Amino acid sequence: MNYGVVRYILGRILQAEGVFLVFPIIVGIIYGEYNDLLAYGITLLICLLVGTLLSLRKPNKGGLYLKEGFFVVGLGWILMSAFGAVPFVISGDIPNYIDAVFETASGLSTTGASILTDVEALSRTNLFWRSFTHLLGGMGVFVFLSALLPMLGGNSMNLMKAESTGPSVDKLVPRLKDTAKILYAIYLSMGFVEAVTLIILGLPVYDSLLLTFGTIGTGGFGVLNTSISTYSPAIQWTITVFMFLSGVNYAMYFLILRRKLRSALKLSEVRLYFFVYVICVVLICFDLRNYYPVFSENIRQSAFQVSTLLTSTGYMTADFNAWPEFSKSLLIFIMLVGACAGSTGGGIKMSRVMIIFKSIKKQLQMLIHPRAIKKIKVDGADVDHDVVRATNAYIAVFCLFLSISTVLLSINGFDFTTNFTATLATLNNMGPGFNLVGPTCNYSFFSPFSKIVLIIDMLAGRLELFPILLLMTPGSWKRRL
Amino acid sequence: MNYGVVRYILGRILQAEGVFLVFPIIVGIIYGEYNDLLAYGITLLICLLVGTLLSLRKPNKGGLYLKEGFFVVGLGWILMSAFGAVPFVISGDIPNYIDAVFETASGLSTTGASILTDVEALSRTNLFWRSFTHLLGGMGVFVFLSALLPMLGGNSMNLMKAESTGPSVDKLVPRLKDTAKILYAIYLSMGFVEAVTLIILGLPVYDSLLLTFGTIGTGGFGVLNTSISTYSPAIQWTITVFMFLSGVNYAMYFLILRRKLRSALKLSEVRLYFFVYVICVVLICFDLRNYYPVFSENIRQSAFQVSTLLTSTGYMTADFNAWPEFSKSLLIFIMLVGACAGSTGGGIKMSRVMIIFKSIKKQLQMLIHPRAIKKIKVDGADVDHDVVRATNAYIAVFCLFLSISTVLLSINGFDFTTNFTATLATLNNMGPGFNLVGPTCNYSFFSPFSKIVLIIDMLAGRLELFPILLLMTPGSWKRRL
Repeated sequence: MNYGVVRYILGRILQAEGVFLVFPIIVGIIYGEYNDLLAYGITLLICLLVGTLLSLRKPNKGGLYLKEGFFVVGLGWILMSAFGAVPFVISGDIPNYIDAVFETASGLSTTGASILTDVEALSRTNLFWRSFTHLLGGMGVFVFLSALLPMLGGNSMNLMKAESTGPSVDKLVPRLKDTAKILYAIYLSMGFVEAVTLIILGLPVYDSLLLTFGTIGTGGFGVLNTSISTYSPAIQWTITVFMFLSGVNYAMYFLILRRKLRSALKLSEVRLYFFVYVICVVLICFDLRNYYPVFSENIRQSAFQVSTLLTSTGYMTADFNAWPEFSKSLLIFIMLVGACAGSTGGGIKMSRVMIIFKSIKKQLQMLIHPRAIKKIKVDGADVDHDVVRATNAYIAVFCLFLSISTVLLSINGFDFTTNFTATLATLNNMGPGFNLVGPTCNYSFFSPFSKIVLIIDMLAGRLELFPILLLMTPGSWKRRL
Repeated sequence: MNYGVVRYILGRILQAEGVFLVFPIIVGIIYGEYNDLLAYGITLLICLLVGTLLSLRKPNKGGLYLKEGFFVVGLGWILMSAFGAVPFVISGDIPNYIDAVFETASGLSTTGASILTDVEALSRTNLFWRSFTHLLGGMGVFVFLSALLPMLGGNSMNLMKAESTGPSVDKLVPRLKDTAKILYAIYLSMGFVEAVTLIILGLPVYDSLLLTFGTIGTGGFGVLNTSISTYSPAIQWTITVFMFLSGVNYAMYFLILRRKLRSALKLSEVRLYFFVYVICVVLICFDLRNYYPVFSENIRQSAFQVSTLLTSTGYMTADFNAWPEFSKSLLIFIMLVGACAGSTGGGIKMSRVMIIFKSIKKQLQMLIHPRAIKKIKVDGADVDHDVVRATNAYIAVFCLFLSISTVLLSINGFDFTTNFTATLATLNNMGPGFNLVGPTCNYSFFSPFSKIVLIIDMLAGRLELFPILLLMTPGSWKRRL
């Protein structure tokens, strides 16, 4: 491990977090919440101080290999959660530090799982920062920095590989810096359109911004204790649409911007995503035909909940824990699958599911025609063997995290569905699960040990497992000779 | 598809099933159950007649490729279940045909899940046949035939590949026929020792035989409604030991027979199996320290339940559904893992788990040293790339079956834990699950549709998924040109 580089980048990240803290401070000034101003001011100073100390000395030996990329991104997200939690504690809104880290990690990882029993009791400033972490985490802080800073001789592709979603990360344009800028431009434009729509539909600016952060980051933190359920149907539909759009591979938007509409519509991952979405909405609508006798409500509730769970946002308009078992099972299934690669959504990702299905097909074909040489293809191009192997390893590590975390949570004594879906909901950056962690519930009742397990699950899920797994591997901490 | 070969082998299998029906007929004569004699006599005649008609004409073009091997084994097991269910219906003990097929498939696949609410109400003959199917299915009917018949010019290795457990099937000795004989010799010797031990411990011969079938086949059908819970501690310990031994890779016994004790003890899969067993017993003992205050009972219950679930037998001496959540989660976890490859046990198998862990390790090492070329090794030898790919495909298909089956079962409206563990328990040939399919319950309450899904799960699980998946692939039914 090249600790010089690691130290330097971690310092930069903390400096960036300090700068981001300016936004809640502005909110605090607007709403006159002076107690919070102090809390955020102190944290800002700590971040800048520690960040500057760490990045004071430029590393003499450059070189940011894939290993360092994964390592520093893993550590960076842990640090951001640890420092981002401080204002919640100082301001007194979340006095317990583990709870505050849980809430911050949940925000940054765009999980949206909360330990708060009364969201509305938070100050405006704290509530803003809580949702703002979704905006930061959605597209990624390292991606953001890559767009702005010339980081260590342009090797920051390895940071982006660790932070972006999906089995293979492609640059949209030759220069990484431009790719990062384009991604952020699409991301923020989408947010802008959503926020304006919500304001037009009558929501206050503050609420519109927070809900937008939660939607485009596929996070799920809201403004009210009732999540989205008390808003008007028009607002619910708006959020449904933008959640769905946030789960689309950003490569499609890039192709559309480049006026390559035909190629954009041919992306097989996006087609599969659309297909799964429609099928699930239809099946759930049918299953709920007696539960919601009015069709307009039935389709709205079904479409909203499929959007929120397929993209792992975690907003809710209905207590789907009370829905019939068929719909519930289907929802658990789509929670698992998740959104597209290259989106801000969580889960295993459509492209991985596609690669896995094609691997199964290949295995069957090899049984039928043992001598035929078959390559797995997606969108006409061969899928690299490394990508297939990485996908298989991802699934294996996913099952590993799922099993171990479920067993560790079970020490608390809650039921299997609770433990299993709590793990699934955090590992997939979903938010709500079933039973005790159902959509009307929260995570406050877990023991501190369980909360730490869930924090690891959330960060591991957001970074697609390997950066966190690498940090847990003793061999990776060795200093590079 | 070479239908000539398929037809011929299916005929042979039905003839074999006819011959096996002689055993329950002997039991019927001993106990004077003449009504049953008629039922079994008719079925015997049907099997012999249909079997002989099918195998009358030898296929002129030989050649049994891997595809035909998987195809015919899949179909063969379905046929055996369909015909083996007939006497239950004719005798009137299980009047519903789908229920009867469920019970037979459960027996043959060594699942041990039952639709019977009162096992003790069955006639002695029916109860015998029900357990006898465990003996047939445990080591495999095609393996049995391979030991006796010269099948189609010695290409029956492809039958054995489809029927044996684990990611790669090795011949113990150069001739397949001898391998099959050795496997059956070990299998039946182990059964002999167990049966004699049980008789010495005071069980009647009939009960000893049936419990032995259930143990060495890792099936789980018993004689009493209370499974094993009312037997003496000595009998419970005997069954614990033989369940554990049945989950060991038979390659170890072969090495011991060849006096290669050192190599036998070095088998890493068996070591892992032993390690997981001990760890789980210790953890569960600790978790149950207040549940069973007497240590001798605590260790007996823990060791028995870990044996039964790790080997997917399904016997039980305690209602583990009422155990603390930590123990329950651990049990679900070991249900999933299963026994060794090359044993009669079910589950994903230790060797697959080992290969998957090594794949994860390899992936991490490639992150740390991208240029190093690493091969996955087990017991000092490189694991063939095909085996790694097949293992990954297996895990993917397993997840696929698990998801789809859970969703299909949920149509019934029962809770998630019930549907999920019912699928897991049938797919892993376990037997009992949790909640409504817990150890003190049965599968009678499911709808006929759900029962068919579970029958497919059981057969797919026993044959390690691909033979059944191949039958569901339309392309594989094409006649070979």
